[in-house]
Amino acid sequence: MIKKFNYYQPTRIIFGVGRRKELGIWAKRFGKKVLVVVDPNVKKFLSQQYQEMLDTLKSEGIETVVFDHVIPNPTLDSIQEGAEIAKREKVEFVIGIGGGSAIDTAKAIAVAATHEGTAWDYLYFKKEPTEKTLPIIGVPTTAGTGTQTSRVSVLTNTEEKCKSAIASDNIICKVAIVDPELTLTVPPAVTASTGFDVFTHCFESYINVNNQPYVDVLALEAIKVVIEYLKKAYDNPKDLEARTKMAWADTLAGCCLANVGTTIPHALGQAIGGHFPHVSHGQSLAVVYPAFLDYTVEWAIERFAKVARMFNPELEKVSDKEAAYALKQEIVSFLKSINLYYTMEDFGIKKEDVKDLVRHAIEFPDNRVNPRVPDEKDLEELYLKSFRD
Amino acid sequence: MIKKFNYYQPTRIIFGVGRRKELGIWAKRFGKKVLVVVDPNVKKFLSQQYQEMLDTLKSEGIETVVFDHVIPNPTLDSIQEGAEIAKREKVEFVIGIGGGSAIDTAKAIAVAATHEGTAWDYLYFKKEPTEKTLPIIGVPTTAGTGTQTSRVSVLTNTEEKCKSAIASDNIICKVAIVDPELTLTVPPAVTASTGFDVFTHCFESYINVNNQPYVDVLALEAIKVVIEYLKKAYDNPKDLEARTKMAWADTLAGCCLANVGTTIPHALGQAIGGHFPHVSHGQSLAVVYPAFLDYTVEWAIERFAKVARMFNPELEKVSDKEAAYALKQEIVSFLKSINLYYTMEDFGIKKEDVKDLVRHAIEFPDNRVNPRVPDEKDLEELYLKSFRD
Repeated sequence: MIKKFNYYQPTRIIFGVGRRKELGIWAKRFGKKVLVVVDPNVKKFLSQQYQEMLDTLKSEGIETVVFDHVIPNPTLDSIQEGAEIAKREKVEFVIGIGGGSAIDTAKAIAVAATHEGTAWDYLYFKKEPTEKTLPIIGVPTTAGTGTQTSRVSVLTNTEEKCKSAIASDNIICKVAIVDPELTLTVPPAVTASTGFDVFTHCFESYINVNNQPYVDVLALEAIKVVIEYLKKAYDNPKDLEARTKMAWADTLAGCCLANVGTTIPHALGQAIGGHFPHVSHGQSLAVVYPAFLDYTVEWAIERFAKVARMFNPELEKVSDKEAAYALKQEIVSFLKSINLYYTMEDFGIKKEDVKDLVRHAIEFPDNRVNPRVPDEKDLEELYLKSFRD
Repeated sequence: MIKKFNYYQPTRIIFGVGRRKELGIWAKRFGKKVLVVVDPNVKKFLSQQYQEMLDTLKSEGIETVVFDHVIPNPTLDSIQEGAEIAKREKVEFVIGIGGGSAIDTAKAIAVAATHEGTAWDYLYFKKEPTEKTLPIIGVPTTAGTGTQTSRVSVLTNTEEKCKSAIASDNIICKVAIVDPELTLTVPPAVTASTGFDVFTHCFESYINVNNQPYVDVLALEAIKVVIEYLKKAYDNPKDLEARTKMAWADTLAGCCLANVGTTIPHALGQAIGGHFPHVSHGQSLAVVYPAFLDYTVEWAIERFAKVARMFNPELEKVSDKEAAYALKQEIVSFLKSINLYYTMEDFGIKKEDVKDLVRHAIEFPDNRVNPRVPDEKDLEELYLKSFRD
C-alpha cells in the first residue's frame, strides 16, 4: 500500500544546452534590479558564458549588482556582506551562478536581506524564513548539490565552528536554469566528488524511512543515470552527453532532497567537512559509505537489493539478501573507478579526532531517518571502521 | 542526448488515505472565506466524507459558501453562475471537490470571478488569466482527469456548441488533496472510463513530439500502475490498494498533461463528446484508440515498443518493430478486460456524422504534436475505421 506523503517542488526547471542565454527572459518577471551572486571561479573559467548571462539581463533592462565574495562552505560573514549590499541597493531578486556554494549563498542572502537578524537565526530548527524572502534564480555550474531544486542552504558559522542549514519552501529557487554546457570545465576530481554526491542524495532518500513513491521514481531514475554516465563525465570532461545526463540526475536529486532527504552519511560527512575543511563534501561521504552500507544493509534488504541490481544486473539471479549485501562491493568498485575511494588516513584524520566528530555528527536529524537509527557509540564505530586499520 | 525542456508543476500534493481530513489545515493559508464547488454526486454518495471536509474548514475558522450546480462537461452558464456568487460573497479562494467537472468548474470560476468578461474569453488561444486568479484547491473523487495537477480547465459553450479549454499556469491547483478513499464509491463503468483516460494522458504525453525526460519518467511509472491496477479497481471497487494506486497514477498523469499533453485521440474524442454528450470522455477515447494506434505506430516504433512490453513482457523477445505493432492488440485486450471496447455504432454514431466530427476535431492543436500529423482526410479515415464495418 502507498504510504501517505506530501510532494512539493515548485521550481520552474529550464533545462538544456545553451539555455543560460534565456536568463534575462526568465528573470524579468521578478523585477528590474538583481543581485548576481557569482562564484569567482565562474568569472575565471566561464568568463564568456558569464558575460552572455549578464548581457541577457541587460538586454531585458535589468540592472545588475554583482557580489562575487562567494567562498566554498559559505560563511555567515560573506552572507551578511551580500545581504547588506542587497539591502543598500534595494535589489528585487537574487540570482546564484556557480556550484552549491554560490546558490546557497544567494538563498541565504535572499533571507538575510529581508528578515531581522542574520541568516543564522533562520536555521531549520529556529525560525522559518517568510514569504518576504527575495525570489531566487539558481544557475548551477556543477552537477552535485541539487540545490537548484532543493529547499536547503548550507552555511557555516566560523565563530561557532558549526555548519548547519536553512531549510524552507521559501528558499526554493523560483527558476532553475540548468545548462549542462556550464559544467564542461569542471575538473575530473570535482566531477567525481559532486557526481557521487548526486548518488548519495538519491540513495539516501530512497532508503530513508520517510521514502515515498514520487521520490522513489525520481531517485531510481537519477541513480540509473549516475551509474551510466558519471564515469563517462569523469573520463572525458568534454562529453556533453554525459554532462547533460549528470545535470539532469542532479536536478532530480534536488527534488528528492526537497521531499525526503539524506541519512547517516550526511551526518558523518558534514561533521568531517566542518572539522577538516580540506575534505570536499563528496570525499567526506565517500570515505564513510562502506561502513554505512555494512551498518544499514540488514535493515533495508529490499531497497539495497534494488540498487545493487542497477549496478550489476547479474544480481537479478540471486536472492534479495545476497544482492543487498553485494551493494557495498559494487559501490566500492564504483568509487575506485572514479578515484574516490578513501580511508580516513588519506585525509590526515586520526582516531583521536573521532570523539569530536561524533559529538558533531550526532546532532544531525539525518541519523533518525536511517532504517537503522544509530546512537553515539554506533557513529563512533562507523568512523573507526572508515580507517584502513 | 537530452532535448531542451521546461518542467513546472508547483502543486502541493497531499496524498493518502484519510487526508481529506486535513483540508482545513491546508486551506487556511489562502483566506477566511471560500467557495466550495462540489459535484452533487459527492453530496449524495460521499455525504459523510463531504461533511468531514466542511467540518475541517469550519474548525479552522473558514467561512464556506457552497456552489453545487456542477454539471458534467461544465458549461459557461454554470461557471458564470458560480463566478457571480464568488464575487458577491467576496470569497478569497475556491475548493473543487469531485471529478474533473467539479475541479474544472472551480478553476474556471477562479478566473471568471477575477477577470473582465467570461471564462470563455480566457481560452488557451485567447487571453491568459493573470495572477489575480483566485487560489484553487482540488480534491478529486475520481481517478481520471488529472486536473488536480494539470494546467487545464475544459469547458463547454452551449450557445456555440463548442468544447474548449483554459490552459494556464495560473489555474494550476495550489494544493491537491488526493484521498483514495473518496474514489471507493465510483462505479465500475466510470472506473474503467476514467482509468483509461489516465493511460491516455500518459501514453500520448510519452509519444508526443514534445516528449521530455522528466515527463517520460512520470508517464512510464503511471502506465505501469494502470496496467497492474485498473482492472483490479474495476473488478473490486472496494480494493483500497488498487484505488490508491490509480489515484497516484492519475496524479502523475496530470503532471504529464501540465508539461507535455495529449495528441490525436483527444482531438477525435473531444469532438465526439461535443456532438454526442452521452458518450463519456473515456469511451470517446477508447473507441478511436485502435485506429489511432494503427495510424501512428510506424512513426513511433521505439516508444510504442516500450509500452507494448509493459503490457506484455514476452515482447522483449521480439524486435522493436514487432513489439510496436503488437501494442494495438494489447490495448484492445486491455479495453475488453474492462468492458471498454467499442465501435462507433455502439454509441449510435453514423457515418454521415463523421464530416461534422472532423470539422471540429481538426481544430485541436493536439493533432500537430502527434508523431504523424494528420490532415482532415486522415481524421476522417480514423473515424471511419472506428466503425465495425
